[in-house]
Amino acid sequence: MAAHGVVDGHSCEHPWVRVDATGTIVATGAGVPPTAANDTAFDLGHRLLLPGMVNAHSHAFQRLIRGKTHTLAAGNPDSFWSWRTAMYAAATTLDPDGVYQATRDCFAEMLAAGITCVGEFHYLHHRPDGRPYDQANALSQAVIAAATDVGIRLALLEVFYARAGHQQQLLPEQRRFCDASVEAYFARVDALRGRSSQQLTIGLAPHSVRAVGFDALVAIADYATRHDMVVHTHVSEQPRENRECHAEHGCSPTEILARAGLLARPRTFTAVHAIHISERDIELLATQNVCACPTTEADLGDGIVAADRLLAAGSNLCVGSDSNAVIDLVQEARLLEMHTRLATGRRLCLLSAQRQQLGPILWNIASTNGATALGRPDLGELSVGRPFDAVVCEPAYPKVADEPNAAFDAMMAAGTAACIRQVFVGGRRLR
Amino acid sequence: MAAHGVVDGHSCEHPWVRVDATGTIVATGAGVPPTAANDTAFDLGHRLLLPGMVNAHSHAFQRLIRGKTHTLAAGNPDSFWSWRTAMYAAATTLDPDGVYQATRDCFAEMLAAGITCVGEFHYLHHRPDGRPYDQANALSQAVIAAATDVGIRLALLEVFYARAGHQQQLLPEQRRFCDASVEAYFARVDALRGRSSQQLTIGLAPHSVRAVGFDALVAIADYATRHDMVVHTHVSEQPRENRECHAEHGCSPTEILARAGLLARPRTFTAVHAIHISERDIELLATQNVCACPTTEADLGDGIVAADRLLAAGSNLCVGSDSNAVIDLVQEARLLEMHTRLATGRRLCLLSAQRQQLGPILWNIASTNGATALGRPDLGELSVGRPFDAVVCEPAYPKVADEPNAAFDAMMAAGTAACIRQVFVGGRRLR
Repeated sequence: MAAHGVVDGHSCEHPWVRVDATGTIVATGAGVPPTAANDTAFDLGHRLLLPGMVNAHSHAFQRLIRGKTHTLAAGNPDSFWSWRTAMYAAATTLDPDGVYQATRDCFAEMLAAGITCVGEFHYLHHRPDGRPYDQANALSQAVIAAATDVGIRLALLEVFYARAGHQQQLLPEQRRFCDASVEAYFARVDALRGRSSQQLTIGLAPHSVRAVGFDALVAIADYATRHDMVVHTHVSEQPRENRECHAEHGCSPTEILARAGLLARPRTFTAVHAIHISERDIELLATQNVCACPTTEADLGDGIVAADRLLAAGSNLCVGSDSNAVIDLVQEARLLEMHTRLATGRRLCLLSAQRQQLGPILWNIASTNGATALGRPDLGELSVGRPFDAVVCEPAYPKVADEPNAAFDAMMAAGTAACIRQVFVGGRRLR
Repeated sequence: MAAHGVVDGHSCEHPWVRVDATGTIVATGAGVPPTAANDTAFDLGHRLLLPGMVNAHSHAFQRLIRGKTHTLAAGNPDSFWSWRTAMYAAATTLDPDGVYQATRDCFAEMLAAGITCVGEFHYLHHRPDGRPYDQANALSQAVIAAATDVGIRLALLEVFYARAGHQQQLLPEQRRFCDASVEAYFARVDALRGRSSQQLTIGLAPHSVRAVGFDALVAIADYATRHDMVVHTHVSEQPRENRECHAEHGCSPTEILARAGLLARPRTFTAVHAIHISERDIELLATQNVCACPTTEADLGDGIVAADRLLAAGSNLCVGSDSNAVIDLVQEARLLEMHTRLATGRRLCLLSAQRQQLGPILWNIASTNGATALGRPDLGELSVGRPFDAVVCEPAYPKVADEPNAAFDAMMAAGTAACIRQVFVGGRRLR
């Protein structure tokens, strides 16, 4: 029992939740809970009970270069593309144990920051020279092991990467990202799908329209439909990607993804970034998910997602920690709103007649909406039949007068993930 | 002695500082310090010793509406101007004790966040109906008392406010901001100047070109020159302010401030915000200070300061917590860089051949540069003869590998004021 919370999708006072031995919610309510045998009652006092956050886009190993790309001396990473050179250098060094350690450390920081499920957009597959490991999925298994050991739920978004770009020579550092063919990729995914569980789901991730040709996009759309899988793709993060797509296909990245059939099933496709997009692209993404990564998009000079227009069109907006320089979905969700204010000169950009308070809207973006994007409709809400994945927050951080709505708004509009005090996954307290 | 730090204006390893009984630095060095009688040695381990931060622009009482302006229900504050209505409502309720309490709570949060000196842009002067209190400076004295009780140094930027705008009727809520005349204002400032000390300095603050006519600007420039005072003004925060200035004066706010003589003495004038400015305005501000307040400027949809162009022109850039919804100069300094990346599509916008590492640049913006803007050249650096105003940080927050430069960069590029562990003002440890 807590002073306040979001339970059954609604903000309420004095919510309580009953969880069975499997970690599943068996009853919820507000006010004084009826006692039952075997109840272990937690009185959370003035704290706030919320669904665990869902991180819809991560590259865990990139945390290794946190703080190391901000000097003029270090290879001059003064653009997205030169930053990528520094990131590739880190990617080249990792063996399976290195991938495991970097991912475990990153996921542990996520869990402490209130993230109970992460979508790992995983593109390190083979040896640095491109030859497969003896175990073809050795690096994917290292990521799975890291998630298991930390206790965070994982949506492994297995990347297909085929080329540097249309008619461009593959860089040596990109060799380990590439499968021999889309069939070889599907064989790896088949093996991974066999390991699916409550803790692990597998999604498909054609890296970008730069790195994947049209035929492979069509094949991936077909495979995803047959196996009822979600698909995530980097979309229009940089203007150069759009220019190259127009040169190759005569249309935008979103349009070619639609043409390949990837946007046919509602809410199964997630466009990551979707910054440099047209009105037509917004229409195409109206029935799909858009994952913004505001701290990374600022760090890399990508630009500002048109969150207000995507929301008005009907897109499901979620957030990701992406490069993991910052791991804080409170900040990501806030900056989605704040960057939109900077771009439009207006306030309250993500509010609407239906949703009138900023705090719950931003939390929803950082939890429920991410769960949708990762194909986990069972997560992101505290209600009967779902796993108890939850966080307990100190809403008076930063301090405001003792009004629950203002405290929730202040936490999301001005606070950080430092507000998080307890974290539960599947009923187990992990922090 | 600390593992690393910025002492005498330079990043160094194993810095040490010796402080006398008055809180003044009497010796500095790097390596093993020579012991002296009466030395109390602090071994700060792997921590980072830095000059205390200087907050160049605050409205302390606005912290009262933190978290209370983000719902559609509450008077629909969907623009700067409707947010201002909510802020005016809070301003109207405060009596001298209310001003004291709100300011004390705000300053206490600042001190805990590593701010050792604050420029309070103070515009609540009289009773809500505009009549002076029996003590004409009752509310200014409440601010001074709050700073004294918290132990933070104060640059009281005493505001002159004369009108709602050119040929505009004063709003009832604005009455308490207004002095009867510029002479009445100078009389109040004369009295306050008599209280100046190491803890308290007085600056002048014609609120904005909207709220102050040309003749008063000239009189204030003259008074400031005669008494060697700094002047702070809100400049071009919103496009409407520029349009009104063009209608009244036929030029930009910065140009009319220059014409009034306020930009004549280098580094004595601070343009707060300076967002909607021209190339000509940037030239005029090249020898002056510009105070950005990125979290507030995002919250209010103001827009992005052209930090890279101002820096290239020669302006001294500093930061302020402004509305105090967020009190965290680590974030303010970072967002100055990050917003510039969003606006330009480039990285490392505030770096140059002379200054090649982001961490020290951002700390400098949050400390030394703010001290310059507040007319306190004795603050913002740890060197002999200056007061020991310092903070001790945990640079491994957020975590990176154990490289001091990367840790400092990560702290500034990805962390928050939560990295601050100890705070000293004038040699006294206050946190």
